[in-house]
Amino acid sequence: MIERGPAGNAVIGQSGGPTAVINQSLVGCLEELARAPQVKRILGARHAVQGIVEEDFVDLTGISGDRLQRLALTPGAVLGSSRHKPDEEYCQRIFTAFARNNVRYFFYIGGNDSADTCRIVHEVAKAQAYELVSHHIPKTIDNDLRLNDHTPGFASAARFVISAFLGDSLDNMALPGIKINVVMGRHAGFLTAASVLARQYPGAGPHLVYVPETPFEVEQFIADVAAIHEQHGRCQIAVSEGILDPQGTPIAVALAKSVERDAHGNVQLSGSGALGDFLAQTVKERLGAGLRVRADTFGYLQRSFAGCVSEVDQAEAREVGREAARVALAGSSEGSIAIERVSSRPYRVAYRRVELSDVAAHARTLPEEYRAGANDIAEAYREYLIPLVGPLPSVETL
Amino acid sequence: MIERGPAGNAVIGQSGGPTAVINQSLVGCLEELARAPQVKRILGARHAVQGIVEEDFVDLTGISGDRLQRLALTPGAVLGSSRHKPDEEYCQRIFTAFARNNVRYFFYIGGNDSADTCRIVHEVAKAQAYELVSHHIPKTIDNDLRLNDHTPGFASAARFVISAFLGDSLDNMALPGIKINVVMGRHAGFLTAASVLARQYPGAGPHLVYVPETPFEVEQFIADVAAIHEQHGRCQIAVSEGILDPQGTPIAVALAKSVERDAHGNVQLSGSGALGDFLAQTVKERLGAGLRVRADTFGYLQRSFAGCVSEVDQAEAREVGREAARVALAGSSEGSIAIERVSSRPYRVAYRRVELSDVAAHARTLPEEYRAGANDIAEAYREYLIPLVGPLPSVETL
Repeated sequence: MIERGPAGNAVIGQSGGPTAVINQSLVGCLEELARAPQVKRILGARHAVQGIVEEDFVDLTGISGDRLQRLALTPGAVLGSSRHKPDEEYCQRIFTAFARNNVRYFFYIGGNDSADTCRIVHEVAKAQAYELVSHHIPKTIDNDLRLNDHTPGFASAARFVISAFLGDSLDNMALPGIKINVVMGRHAGFLTAASVLARQYPGAGPHLVYVPETPFEVEQFIADVAAIHEQHGRCQIAVSEGILDPQGTPIAVALAKSVERDAHGNVQLSGSGALGDFLAQTVKERLGAGLRVRADTFGYLQRSFAGCVSEVDQAEAREVGREAARVALAGSSEGSIAIERVSSRPYRVAYRRVELSDVAAHARTLPEEYRAGANDIAEAYREYLIPLVGPLPSVETL
Repeated sequence: MIERGPAGNAVIGQSGGPTAVINQSLVGCLEELARAPQVKRILGARHAVQGIVEEDFVDLTGISGDRLQRLALTPGAVLGSSRHKPDEEYCQRIFTAFARNNVRYFFYIGGNDSADTCRIVHEVAKAQAYELVSHHIPKTIDNDLRLNDHTPGFASAARFVISAFLGDSLDNMALPGIKINVVMGRHAGFLTAASVLARQYPGAGPHLVYVPETPFEVEQFIADVAAIHEQHGRCQIAVSEGILDPQGTPIAVALAKSVERDAHGNVQLSGSGALGDFLAQTVKERLGAGLRVRADTFGYLQRSFAGCVSEVDQAEAREVGREAARVALAGSSEGSIAIERVSSRPYRVAYRRVELSDVAAHARTLPEEYRAGANDIAEAYREYLIPLVGPLPSVETL
């Protein structure tokens, strides 16, 4: 390895929602940093930026390969996470902590908000003429980072959603009725759309798919459900937690007694069954009280369930962590790592360094070519997704 | 095989809630019946007793071994299920359908309600001097059948619950707060109690476990949560959907706008997030609005999720199906198959024919020796459960 970049310590943090593979990225980064003589100590920030300003670090230097591998396979975020969004003053405190600990490398694993934090901290250091190498490592089950074909964490969450829809559709076929499943996804419908890979036999659900990219109209929803129920004698529905009414208000917000927001201004959507219950109640009231109507909200299981992971996702999450360390040590002063798809058959990706400002704060949504009308997903999306999630359980029906 | 029992056709049905392994029992029964020359045709009843009275049968005679194996591995109930509870008149119609189709063997896979149905039908046939061999095959994720050490379907559902708590506890450690998880279990706390196997590292959740066997008092619950939060800075909670207030009313029923009951008089508990949302709201109101409080209701995923199954459960479910066919063909005119544990280390079970009346309609609950106070589970229960669920994902923490 070429010795480039300043000599000093490194800080690594994990931010935003944990995933099944975020620890893979941490371990990938640690593996590469361990080989660099200019990196003296590697410090893990407990609970992200919060741990930095409080100088609550765990020393990650010299952890054994065995233990690293066990950490990599553990879901959650072993360093702890945070939803804090640093402003200028907060970033000044981060800088002070970095300067006091001779931190010259900053790696931050997270979504677009985390990339933005990384960018701001880098700007503050630059303004103080302090040499700080700042790199973002992508992670989000929402799959909404720009410049990325897909993001680490998404494929494992998608695998969970598909496995859930697959089994639940068979359950719903055995005891027919209307079944509503609410899937994570505040602004982007990628994860909800993944449910269509559960269509593995004639008549399989989901029969209807609603994503935040298309306005949700209750009247149309009721008409859609009635039509499917008429045709199949049952109806399995995938709904994003973030669906919006035609005025752009989240349906879930209109239902909440009190609205809870995080530091990024995001309204709490997960950890409540209210949206599913509202939709189920509406169907019951409109289509007949005798109908069997049920709603499940998949909640945090989608991103945390132990033992449901995509091997492609694991490998890629590890690699973006490694690549971030590699480019940082090779002289890149700031950036993020983007996953680009080179080909689908055979499936092959490349990792590319991109500017922080190109990823930070922006988000992408489910492109129109992946949608089919207001309540379905296009075949092109299946083609996109299949290589990411790994082999699915096969089913047989009578 | 000795040719005993009458010559004629066989009907097999699947009743109650589907599971990850109920199709294993169907296939096990089919495998043995296929070898019996006195069994002419094997008919699958679509949607259980409903399919019998409507003579809606699918011919299961001579399905290939490959296809049988794929059916066995499929979650759900491939024949379709039903919640109908036959009364005398309904059983008369079942008998008429059996007589018209020369059905001499009746196998019914389900819980204690299904065993009771099996018993009533057998009585009706007997009263008409019609030779009918009637056998129940045990199945229930609730694990509440008498005379059984445990029941097929339970271990796979338990495996799902443990995997969910394991990942969710790590998620909750990364983003600390109060997390409530609602688990299936109308009267019996076995499945909720299974969550304690997720305690794989110091401080791991669940920190509190509430089952229907112990009255649930809101004031005590709040005090429990406050104490754990004080100690760990977070609190993960397992709650049975069927928890009762000190007067014996399900907490979920008090919350429901309208109560939906099935033919067995059971109130709908699953397919709604109301109980979890109520508990989360109560914690928020009592312990501070600034607290991060979330609730997930695991819902139908617990019994249907594709790709989360216990191999022990698969094998045992197959074997109870085989054994029911074997005893029926060996001359037993009615009965159920019970799983008895011969030893825990090494784990070994025996299958025993028991009387229908000993299993029918009765239910068992989580024994007192498996409970620890009002909010925890005893070590003895862990010992009981460990051999059933198979190897769990290991985790590593910092």
